[in-house]
Amino acid sequence: MADKKKRRRPADPDSDSIPFKSRLKPDSVILQALKALAAAESTPSASTNPLTLADLSLSQACREVSDLPLSSVQSTIESLVLSLTHSILSGQGLSFSVPSRSSANQLYVPELDRIVLKDKSSLRPYANVSTVRKTTITARILQLIHQLCLKNIHVTKRDLFYTDVKLFQDQTQSDAVLDDVSCILGCTRSSLNVIAAEKGVVVGRLIFSDNGDLIDCTKMGMGGKAIPPNIDRVGDMQSDALFILLVEKDAAYIRLAEDRFYNRFPCIIITAKGQPDVATRLFLRKLKTELKVPVLALVDSDPYGLKILSVYGCGSKNMSYDSANLTTPDIKWLGIRPSDLDKYNIPEQCRLPMTEQDIKTGKDLLEEDFVKKNPGWVEELNLMVKTKQKAEIQALSSFGFQYLSEVYLPLKLQQEDWL
Amino acid sequence: MADKKKRRRPADPDSDSIPFKSRLKPDSVILQALKALAAAESTPSASTNPLTLADLSLSQACREVSDLPLSSVQSTIESLVLSLTHSILSGQGLSFSVPSRSSANQLYVPELDRIVLKDKSSLRPYANVSTVRKTTITARILQLIHQLCLKNIHVTKRDLFYTDVKLFQDQTQSDAVLDDVSCILGCTRSSLNVIAAEKGVVVGRLIFSDNGDLIDCTKMGMGGKAIPPNIDRVGDMQSDALFILLVEKDAAYIRLAEDRFYNRFPCIIITAKGQPDVATRLFLRKLKTELKVPVLALVDSDPYGLKILSVYGCGSKNMSYDSANLTTPDIKWLGIRPSDLDKYNIPEQCRLPMTEQDIKTGKDLLEEDFVKKNPGWVEELNLMVKTKQKAEIQALSSFGFQYLSEVYLPLKLQQEDWL
Repeated sequence: MADKKKRRRPADPDSDSIPFKSRLKPDSVILQALKALAAAESTPSASTNPLTLADLSLSQACREVSDLPLSSVQSTIESLVLSLTHSILSGQGLSFSVPSRSSANQLYVPELDRIVLKDKSSLRPYANVSTVRKTTITARILQLIHQLCLKNIHVTKRDLFYTDVKLFQDQTQSDAVLDDVSCILGCTRSSLNVIAAEKGVVVGRLIFSDNGDLIDCTKMGMGGKAIPPNIDRVGDMQSDALFILLVEKDAAYIRLAEDRFYNRFPCIIITAKGQPDVATRLFLRKLKTELKVPVLALVDSDPYGLKILSVYGCGSKNMSYDSANLTTPDIKWLGIRPSDLDKYNIPEQCRLPMTEQDIKTGKDLLEEDFVKKNPGWVEELNLMVKTKQKAEIQALSSFGFQYLSEVYLPLKLQQEDWL
Repeated sequence: MADKKKRRRPADPDSDSIPFKSRLKPDSVILQALKALAAAESTPSASTNPLTLADLSLSQACREVSDLPLSSVQSTIESLVLSLTHSILSGQGLSFSVPSRSSANQLYVPELDRIVLKDKSSLRPYANVSTVRKTTITARILQLIHQLCLKNIHVTKRDLFYTDVKLFQDQTQSDAVLDDVSCILGCTRSSLNVIAAEKGVVVGRLIFSDNGDLIDCTKMGMGGKAIPPNIDRVGDMQSDALFILLVEKDAAYIRLAEDRFYNRFPCIIITAKGQPDVATRLFLRKLKTELKVPVLALVDSDPYGLKILSVYGCGSKNMSYDSANLTTPDIKWLGIRPSDLDKYNIPEQCRLPMTEQDIKTGKDLLEEDFVKKNPGWVEELNLMVKTKQKAEIQALSSFGFQYLSEVYLPLKLQQEDWL
């Protein structure tokens, strides 16, 4: 039976007594503060000229790949083949030197705040029963990449696999060698013109070119612009945004796009709709690098929200050789933070109890270097694990559908409440 | 060891002897035929004025919902509440009459080629211990929808749930009542301004407006335009496309977008990246209804490819009350069809053996009305189940990365080879 207690609601979404709305200052005051912040970000300083392995005298000990133009990829392959030919003609045989991508060869560099590869390599000779297959696959992948260079087209990993199923046998084999080839050539996977399916969308105060077409992201309706799978054909970024709002999930993105939040507070809104894909990570990095504005993250208040934030910020372990190109430094954790639950009076029934697995994931995160180096994050995560409560961004709808765009976010911006 | 047999490939992607390329006629010849086809489609005939329940004298026996403008939704809710108030005041109490959405109340209508709801309803009285909770939820959802009408904004199902977690308890309950409310009011779920997350993208010869912004889909680079989640703010469709190419998966979409296939053969390319979501289904239907051009489907040659085609064509069972608005009639199965595997010499190693589950799904499909009514489809499906072989669209990459856009599709169009 529906008893009275059950039907009592924490706040009537229609009433004027929307929690914290009265604390909001005029938009002009908030904008003033945001402008100062964006200006600070774009002035040349240590934060905009990030450290490299060379600055740390680690270039010898560590290995990273970089974006190369297609012509360089082509000539690097040709030089490699030439040196292999010399080796064969001089009686040394055919052998690739392949950087190790195993976790034993990975290193978290606190100064860079990301995972990089150490310098261990191994030989992959053709004249050896245990490596002849992998050597053959490596040569074939190099040949296919060389074809892509000549034709100047992009393909997916799946396409690559299907060009020679008999040799590759299954896609994990061609995928793994593709990563090897990135490391061998010293370039990113996107430089090889092998792309991942796109998932993300972007909307807001941004104009950019996608494959030669000029895109105005303030004129993309509610659907937004699909983030292109090939970052090398993205360019000409122009923007008057004061910050980038990185949103974990679709529902919050839709709310902000429909309300054209970016017109009230000039910003670029971007989401990968859950787990970050390579295309969205590359796009975010390019946005931050070119526009030099802060990145504020809006994620669920649960361990996975923080984990997603960390993938954007510090990279994933299986692509650590490419961390310099895939990661966006200095992402701020705007919300929903565990401390927000009480601060914004999120009703008890909109909070969810954490499962055993959630709690374990939270505790594991507390051991990660990228969390440890940010005391504010540690404190929040400790609170989450202690209270055993989580909440989605959507929980704010309990105060009205537009509470997110009309009160919560403006208030967060006003208070510069991020970590 | 890599023996010679393993490394022999079915065709060298670089050679001029690309299979079937020689059979291709000049594009002008193919375009001529496509123009005739598009013209036939747009002349007024039975196919463009599809049958309705009323034509079949089934309006009494069956129930369907329709798109209503927001103001009508609002006034329908207000009339309903007024009649409920009268009922209470006259001593009859509060009770909703709710159409049954169970499978026992569903009917496949061959003339319409879709599933519809029969007319069974049940009463949901407040003064009954077994229904009081659901009655309360129904009233609350009606109130929330009324709010959306007044504010003219869109929300997701998740947002709706979070406005009253204490009452709804879990999202399946608010979702189910939301479908009930659609049926009670006789309007589609998108008319209620409750939207699903968007997934699809569109590119090609199409201009349309999204929430007031004019979008030119020939100028959307490789990423394309994200399909808007709210179809009611999509309009002003203009196009010189001769057909719509409905693509199952992302990888094929990317290939066609990069090659700007739509410039060689004027078309609109659309994909939901796998399982069709509501937004993409609504968008496809609107495209077909407004532009009156054929829809050609490019899906994997496996039971799921055909199943996806059927969801676009005939609807899914759990939203059968809305089938008239969600389905696109007369979608042609272009490929990859089971008979294509031999016809186009798809190499053995690029075909995959069907699993037991695949074969069962295939056999189940053979029993479905929408397959049975198309003898060509039955024949193809029988061949698939008999040969126990499946293949992805990507399997065409074995003849070169651009074989799909440069040979396979043009040849299919030239031969008008669809079912």
